[in-house]
Amino acid sequence: MIVVMSIDSGEKEVAEIIKRLKESGLQGHLSKGVERTVIGVVGQTFPELRDMLEVLPGVEEVIPISKPYKLSSREFQPADTIIKVGEVEIGGDELVVIAGPCAVETEEQLLSTARAVKAAGARLLRGGAFKPSTSPYHFRGLGEDGLKLLALAREETGLPIITEVLTPGDVSLVVSYADVLQVGARNMQNFILLDEVGKTRKPVMLKRGMSASLQEWLLSAEYIISQGNRQVMLCERGIRTFETYTRNTMDISAIPIIKKVSHLPIIADPSHGTGKWYLVAPLALAAVAAGADGLMIEVHPTPDYALKDGAQSLSFENFERLMSQLAPVASAMGRKLAARVQTGATD
Amino acid sequence: MIVVMSIDSGEKEVAEIIKRLKESGLQGHLSKGVERTVIGVVGQTFPELRDMLEVLPGVEEVIPISKPYKLSSREFQPADTIIKVGEVEIGGDELVVIAGPCAVETEEQLLSTARAVKAAGARLLRGGAFKPSTSPYHFRGLGEDGLKLLALAREETGLPIITEVLTPGDVSLVVSYADVLQVGARNMQNFILLDEVGKTRKPVMLKRGMSASLQEWLLSAEYIISQGNRQVMLCERGIRTFETYTRNTMDISAIPIIKKVSHLPIIADPSHGTGKWYLVAPLALAAVAAGADGLMIEVHPTPDYALKDGAQSLSFENFERLMSQLAPVASAMGRKLAARVQTGATD
Amino acid sequence: MIVVMSIDSGEKEVAEIIKRLKESGLQGHLSKGVERTVIGVVGQTFPELRDMLEVLPGVEEVIPISKPYKLSSREFQPADTIIKVGEVEIGGDELVVIAGPCAVETEEQLLSTARAVKAAGARLLRGGAFKPSTSPYHFRGLGEDGLKLLALAREETGLPIITEVLTPGDVSLVVSYADVLQVGARNMQNFILLDEVGKTRKPVMLKRGMSASLQEWLLSAEYIISQGNRQVMLCERGIRTFETYTRNTMDISAIPIIKKVSHLPIIADPSHGTGKWYLVAPLALAAVAAGADGLMIEVHPTPDYALKDGAQSLSFENFERLMSQLAPVASAMGRKLAARVQTGATD
Amino acid sequence: MIVVMSIDSGEKEVAEIIKRLKESGLQGHLSKGVERTVIGVVGQTFPELRDMLEVLPGVEEVIPISKPYKLSSREFQPADTIIKVGEVEIGGDELVVIAGPCAVETEEQLLSTARAVKAAGARLLRGGAFKPSTSPYHFRGLGEDGLKLLALAREETGLPIITEVLTPGDVSLVVSYADVLQVGARNMQNFILLDEVGKTRKPVMLKRGMSASLQEWLLSAEYIISQGNRQVMLCERGIRTFETYTRNTMDISAIPIIKKVSHLPIIADPSHGTGKWYLVAPLALAAVAAGADGLMIEVHPTPDYALKDGAQSLSFENFERLMSQLAPVASAMGRKLAARVQTGATD
Repeated sequence: MIVVMSIDSGEKEVAEIIKRLKESGLQGHLSKGVERTVIGVVGQTFPELRDMLEVLPGVEEVIPISKPYKLSSREFQPADTIIKVGEVEIGGDELVVIAGPCAVETEEQLLSTARAVKAAGARLLRGGAFKPSTSPYHFRGLGEDGLKLLALAREETGLPIITEVLTPGDVSLVVSYADVLQVGARNMQNFILLDEVGKTRKPVMLKRGMSASLQEWLLSAEYIISQGNRQVMLCERGIRTFETYTRNTMDISAIPIIKKVSHLPIIADPSHGTGKWYLVAPLALAAVAAGADGLMIEVHPTPDYALKDGAQSLSFENFERLMSQLAPVASAMGRKLAARVQTGATD
Repeated sequence: MIVVMSIDSGEKEVAEIIKRLKESGLQGHLSKGVERTVIGVVGQTFPELRDMLEVLPGVEEVIPISKPYKLSSREFQPADTIIKVGEVEIGGDELVVIAGPCAVETEEQLLSTARAVKAAGARLLRGGAFKPSTSPYHFRGLGEDGLKLLALAREETGLPIITEVLTPGDVSLVVSYADVLQVGARNMQNFILLDEVGKTRKPVMLKRGMSASLQEWLLSAEYIISQGNRQVMLCERGIRTFETYTRNTMDISAIPIIKKVSHLPIIADPSHGTGKWYLVAPLALAAVAAGADGLMIEVHPTPDYALKDGAQSLSFENFERLMSQLAPVASAMGRKLAARVQTGATD
Repeated sequence: MIVVMSIDSGEKEVAEIIKRLKESGLQGHLSKGVERTVIGVVGQTFPELRDMLEVLPGVEEVIPISKPYKLSSREFQPADTIIKVGEVEIGGDELVVIAGPCAVETEEQLLSTARAVKAAGARLLRGGAFKPSTSPYHFRGLGEDGLKLLALAREETGLPIITEVLTPGDVSLVVSYADVLQVGARNMQNFILLDEVGKTRKPVMLKRGMSASLQEWLLSAEYIISQGNRQVMLCERGIRTFETYTRNTMDISAIPIIKKVSHLPIIADPSHGTGKWYLVAPLALAAVAAGADGLMIEVHPTPDYALKDGAQSLSFENFERLMSQLAPVASAMGRKLAARVQTGATD
Repeated sequence: MIVVMSIDSGEKEVAEIIKRLKESGLQGHLSKGVERTVIGVVGQTFPELRDMLEVLPGVEEVIPISKPYKLSSREFQPADTIIKVGEVEIGGDELVVIAGPCAVETEEQLLSTARAVKAAGARLLRGGAFKPSTSPYHFRGLGEDGLKLLALAREETGLPIITEVLTPGDVSLVVSYADVLQVGARNMQNFILLDEVGKTRKPVMLKRGMSASLQEWLLSAEYIISQGNRQVMLCERGIRTFETYTRNTMDISAIPIIKKVSHLPIIADPSHGTGKWYLVAPLALAAVAAGADGLMIEVHPTPDYALKDGAQSLSFENFERLMSQLAPVASAMGRKLAARVQTGATD
């Protein structure tokens, strides 16, 4: 932590800071510049100290130096975290594609989608049973019935399932069905929920909040890991900007930055990231080229009848086309992609 | 809802849309412009329709016309909602000032603050017992012990208390202590929590999410009201922008817009809205001049020792100064402000 | 400047930095923390140094300490700058209201507006002769004919005139007519134009760019002042955020911050700041309560026939109403406001 | 254009709108919904109409339907624009890489860079002679001396040159040296400059403003094209968001959107787009995978001594590595990439 003194501060104010640091068992290390005096804080600081120092007389600014996240940082763990879900490894050599409908609607809808995405090379099945929705008048999911249908789809196709948990009270229920727990963008800072999923031993996919900084995102991962659950993967799904053409602006740069500063796997969700089905393929390709460990793609048998997010869902045909476009780019990036099953079952 | 057809679409695509609308019991009303055909949708639409139509061939864009929120709109209820908390009316003629520490820390800290803010003219006491915090390593509040201290402070000063509820599982506990439930910015779209506070009959203060549009904010209020709890007040606490000088950018324009489109009271929180104690007074004055029904201000006996948000907390002396600055502006705006008690107790 | 070394850097990298600083006549001041080594740079740094150091091996981050703007800072000049335009002082005790149409359209339009705003208490007349416009197909102003009409209006009413200069080639022409030169938001970083208006001795109003940080804004003022023209006033006119209800989001906090860090006067423009005429009054009042030195308001005889920005323009009647609402708030803030002339001439 | 009436408006207000439309030679086409009346405007509208209608009594909102840009739209010209610069075609099958230093500093610096980037496969040389700079105290470029060095580098290497023109008064000078004129992000809405480059017959690269919407960007292209210069290419260089880790947030989704709605070529600039040299390669790869027609990359012989933007510049070695990473991704996307010259000259 660096305390920058204002130009008009004097020795008295500096002495006060030094004294205050000593109270907390810390040392102040003075550095007098041409214009300003700067005090380096030496010792084990604590988060509240910044605010405390900032209000003292003569202080212009307090600048933190240490990163506030530890367990999720690459400095703490240099090797990549690899998460095993059944036979699939997320964060390793394979480019893992997760696909399925936004919301589970019916058995027929879910099972036909599960078969189609499996045939096209998807390795996990997604589907929402508990759906967050901006409006109370929208479809909010089938609840446990949706979870049962997901389990049925897993039984039939062998695909592990990922589904969202919305609230702490549902964690044990969702854990009893899901292979991966999803924490949605709107819950990225639902700290009680983070604690609860951190107490489980299921892999967690943590989506980025719609205006979360990278640091805040990693701090939310830190909540989960600090409860003992190290199987956290991150998911970039677009941030909010002034642009209105797309639903969100996908922050592709988040992918290489997360790979640099953290050991956690990173997945990209170009469906929510753009909000438009015809932008899913180019952004999926971009995410892979930028180093993503996987993709999460919304697929629906009939997007024009979807109860949720139809505008950003791919038809089976479009998903199959995307998978064939992905293959050469994944290969160029040195990534394995699951082979498609040539049964013609996808249409 | 308006369906805008693309320039290269033809009669076949239009016929398809009309047919599709009929399926849903709706009518399509054609309007051929110089460049484009536009179809007005007549009848009772439903939220999913937009996405469904948007993916149909030949559709350029689907534009909603109706507002998605109803119960919180001024069209639904032209008269202002006035919320009674003890003897205080929020949303009426009085400018209601809510003050207190960010977090409840100790009995001494809370009680001295409660006495000081009451003497200066505050009408409600705020204080966090359950604290959301970006980092798992920060202070997270005293929990129920904090609620007990708040009850003690109410008993001594007579000030009603407002405190945050973080998660559905805590609602009944917090309801048993608090006079007003606060839903924080990070929980604005914690829909299960909104449902739960909506099932209570306690007044709720709903803070704006840090990148929430005004429409999304009102839709979150709609969640609460649609559960039967009509005592909702909104609180503007700053939005996230590119500016780094302040913690948030306070959106003062939200105040008159909410007053125009909704009947709900609106409170301003310049402490979180700016993050710097020396900006609290000018932004508080601005909020009142823009028509706010009340203010929420963080006050601490010793901001430089606060366990939370010291940098944005006013000392007793600064709070008293703010109250005297507020008086003439409140009066210029035709608002009553509680008289200060002249005991000298505030310092 | 502070150089923060990465955790895995060692003495070799630190030695390299120290050597590099010496090359530039600077000293490095080492401070070893628990986790990281930090190097304080002592001596007269230069702007390019930050980038240069940032790419050296072992460097995690380089943090500037000094503010990059000098002449516009309050540290450089503690006393407020007061700008005289005719008899009017901007930045002093008076709340100065500037009003007039967005664009000069006709003699009748301009003169009737000039008379009306003068009668209501405005002290300067605004009007655009050269208009920036997002689209090449929009009205772009009358050019020099517009300047002549402005001069005519000044002659008749005695109101000094402020008008925008769009490009360096027009500076001498506009200087020959205007009392205050306006540099628009889109030109805030048109550095050649800043140089040119800096070479004149006319007061300049510098509008904030639509996504300019406060620091960038002051650096643009620095361009003008460093050319010798110290008569710079700033104008907050809203920034771009995700919110679509308003044209821009007015950053009211910019007003007290500018007053704190700079000696330059600050004006608020709630017309562009909101884009909606019915939000002009509440935001104007808020700006005054937050400490603005003046307001710039768009007024048009018939907003529904305005060639530019009708939706945010006040009619004469609404402007007069605004002026009467301003009076008590200005007075509460200790500001003088020009008395209205009671001629009934404003309608 | 669609006029949405407020719920409490009646027949009188509607009649007024219809009458007003007739005045302008337009027809109003009524559509009565369950809640609201909507009026479709039929006929050739004009831009100012929206504002004019919006202030009329009973109007809730006016929604434009037609796109405001014409000449730059794919509806106007379905075939891709291909721009020839010497032997290079931009917008065709080849992935065109433009590289060079941010600023021209010395003959040695520029020529060594030109040779290195050519050997690695770059097709155009970039280099700034007139540099925009946030601060007046930064390096502002060599001016015409820089242009002369660029011409020298072209003579020696055969690479066409692209360089920025900052102000209308310099257009003829820059045209006499450059092969492609660059209009920088800060000048995207410098409309007089757009007019001037539109009057030349040189290809223009128009960078996106740092908070420009896609529509505003295309409208700026429209300025140039409407002056008769159809050789416009766009350049995405990152937008401003709340994230502070990167200098800008690169909007990769802009690439496929521009390809969809416009016929103009689109280039990506990951150097400015990220501000960090180690993020240039992943974002360059992402841009190519998303469909970019070319890349603009900053390269410097010694980034740690660069006078401008060293932190985002690649060394020769890193640029060569990037080019070899690009080859397989370009190939996967069906794009040709210029072969590297195997001389070992790049290091």
